[in-house]
Amino acid sequence: MNERYQKGIEVMREHLGPDADQYVESIREVSPLFARVNVEFAFGDIYGDKSNVLNPKIQELITLSALTVMGNAAPQLKLHIHCALNEGVTKEEIVETITQMIAYCGFPAATNAIMIAKEVFKERGLL
Amino acid sequence: MNERYQKGIEVMREHLGPDADQYVESIREVSPLFARVNVEFAFGDIYGDKSNVLNPKIQELITLSALTVMGNAAPQLKLHIHCALNEGVTKEEIVETITQMIAYCGFPAATNAIMIAKEVFKERGLL
Amino acid sequence: MNERYQKGIEVMREHLGPDADQYVESIREVSPLFARVNVEFAFGDIYGDKSNVLNPKIQELITLSALTVMGNAAPQLKLHIHCALNEGVTKEEIVETITQMIAYCGFPAATNAIMIAKEVFKERGLL
Amino acid sequence: MNERYQKGIEVMREHLGPDADQYVESIREVSPLFARVNVEFAFGDIYGDKSNVLNPKIQELITLSALTVMGNAAPQLKLHIHCALNEGVTKEEIVETITQMIAYCGFPAATNAIMIAKEVFKERGLL
Amino acid sequence: MNERYQKGIEVMREHLGPDADQYVESIREVSPLFARVNVEFAFGDIYGDKSNVLNPKIQELITLSALTVMGNAAPQLKLHIHCALNEGVTKEEIVETITQMIAYCGFPAATNAIMIAKEVFKERGLL
Amino acid sequence: MNERYQKGIEVMREHLGPDADQYVESIREVSPLFARVNVEFAFGDIYGDKSNVLNPKIQELITLSALTVMGNAAPQLKLHIHCALNEGVTKEEIVETITQMIAYCGFPAATNAIMIAKEVFKERGLL
Repeated sequence: MNERYQKGIEVMREHLGPDADQYVESIREVSPLFARVNVEFAFGDIYGDKSNVLNPKIQELITLSALTVMGNAAPQLKLHIHCALNEGVTKEEIVETITQMIAYCGFPAATNAIMIAKEVFKERGLL
Repeated sequence: MNERYQKGIEVMREHLGPDADQYVESIREVSPLFARVNVEFAFGDIYGDKSNVLNPKIQELITLSALTVMGNAAPQLKLHIHCALNEGVTKEEIVETITQMIAYCGFPAATNAIMIAKEVFKERGLL
Repeated sequence: MNERYQKGIEVMREHLGPDADQYVESIREVSPLFARVNVEFAFGDIYGDKSNVLNPKIQELITLSALTVMGNAAPQLKLHIHCALNEGVTKEEIVETITQMIAYCGFPAATNAIMIAKEVFKERGLL
Repeated sequence: MNERYQKGIEVMREHLGPDADQYVESIREVSPLFARVNVEFAFGDIYGDKSNVLNPKIQELITLSALTVMGNAAPQLKLHIHCALNEGVTKEEIVETITQMIAYCGFPAATNAIMIAKEVFKERGLL
Repeated sequence: MNERYQKGIEVMREHLGPDADQYVESIREVSPLFARVNVEFAFGDIYGDKSNVLNPKIQELITLSALTVMGNAAPQLKLHIHCALNEGVTKEEIVETITQMIAYCGFPAATNAIMIAKEVFKERGLL
Repeated sequence: MNERYQKGIEVMREHLGPDADQYVESIREVSPLFARVNVEFAFGDIYGDKSNVLNPKIQELITLSALTVMGNAAPQLKLHIHCALNEGVTKEEIVETITQMIAYCGFPAATNAIMIAKEVFKERGLL
């Protein structure tokens, strides 16, 4: 296991929590390269770059707004609402982020996102 | 001018700076309703809601990531990079927000966004 | 309950039928602001503007084509096929609207839309 | 020239006006197949199907809302605003169609569309 | 049954295998025109054009990358992974095509695609 | 310069030709991290992975179809049409790839792509 992978999986575990390793494993079963770059590039190079100035809470908020407007990333949005809560983002900040996106993606994508948030909040006993 | 419009245009001026009124006017020439809801809904109801917990800097960062991944909103991305700088977001925070989006929208949309940021930074003498 | 909300919920009930109130309530549980602007902005300001020249049937047809090509709004497309039928749009007009969209969004999004229409028609005993 | 092509080019000329033939020719220079199916399929099979129940005005309105929300079809949106006007759709109906789309695609795509409409209206002396 | 339909359904059966006819029938129940152009245009005019230089394997690979990045076409992506395997594309080529797309559409759409591939490979006993 | 970067820039030069270094430099001026991962990840990890089974011609064809359907990546589509020609893909294969995409993304995105191809072919004296 190289250094980039090691840094990447540590950053990934911080954001995703204990499910990180299983998440990677489930991709590795079909594509070892895909699994490797998901760890090394997304979390090692990007989320974990040593020059970064945004803290993990803001990293998660800008990801939530992006996944909301994309509108075709329900599993990833659900995952990152968990990540955001893991990093200390509040329920109110998540709801407000999604609500602000109505102005950029309209009601359909924003409504689907707010319903996913509702589902996660219920799973975690926050609603 | 009703109360919602008044609140909206004030919030809009804070984000967009002195160009806010001309921006609205340019839309009003073709659609008074469109111009009105742009002020009253987007800035009055959403950006300016009294229950909001996100500060204007974070409001702009989550908008920047969203406009980056949408990939079809170049004029609005340019406008909101100006807004972000107006609200005190740093060049480094903007660049990092766009760079993080490579993981969510791939290189084409992120590259187009980083080039728009470069252009705005040059216009404002920041690069 | 202010005047905009009152107008919005009336227009919304006309389009959605008896499910309108429950729809709004389900959003309000996670975000009162989101629920409020869905009623006041989307239905009060937009669908219900007093200057409108398009009738409710045409309002629903242009929404159906938009939701079809967006391709990521299955629940909203299903809802608006119901709305269209509620407003007197015929099955043939709905099918033709979706079919015309093949030229603008290709077969995948159009096929997913036509299958949702088929499902709604069966639910309502129209097929 | 077969029968489908003949029907297609006639329907296309009705919608696009005198520019139809040049439009097709400009595509044919790079791909004869692309040019042929644009006429035979889009206008012959779809817009011109003998079972159609929507009139040309409504055909253009549902296309305008679709092109607005797609947000990446500026040349086609411009072309179809001309088509809509050619078919007797009014300026007010076009503006209202685009404005309604704010609710489905947010402000960026809708703003870009309303600005294209403004440009076409000015070209034709309607604004 | 005209000549274009006949050619189209033959090409379609080659790609989709024995499910082709049932697929068309399921669309015809709601829209005969939609079903007809799916066969005549998509498979007769496009996949089956006599001037084509790309072989069916490459036709399927370029469709797989397109459906991956679109991110809103899960049923069609599943169908075309079957088509690709039917045409002799290997599991490794499919996985590599989807993995390459991370660079163009980011992780969410590519992850959803790789998971659909995993599911199809398991159904066919390839994993 | 590390090994991944070295491999990446070599693969990138093979695809892009002599403009590769200037392309990277133009991004590095605004974001060194963005420029670095564009080389190391996109070309080093993905295009240049030692386990790859697709040859450079097919790598470019699947990228062309993806960029066509995305519809918001005009500069990248232009760049990759050059890459495809650099790798020995023929004009006919490029045109057919884009034309096939009509079935998946509709006419607007496909038309914009075919016009970009036409422009590149003219620049290179192929049309």
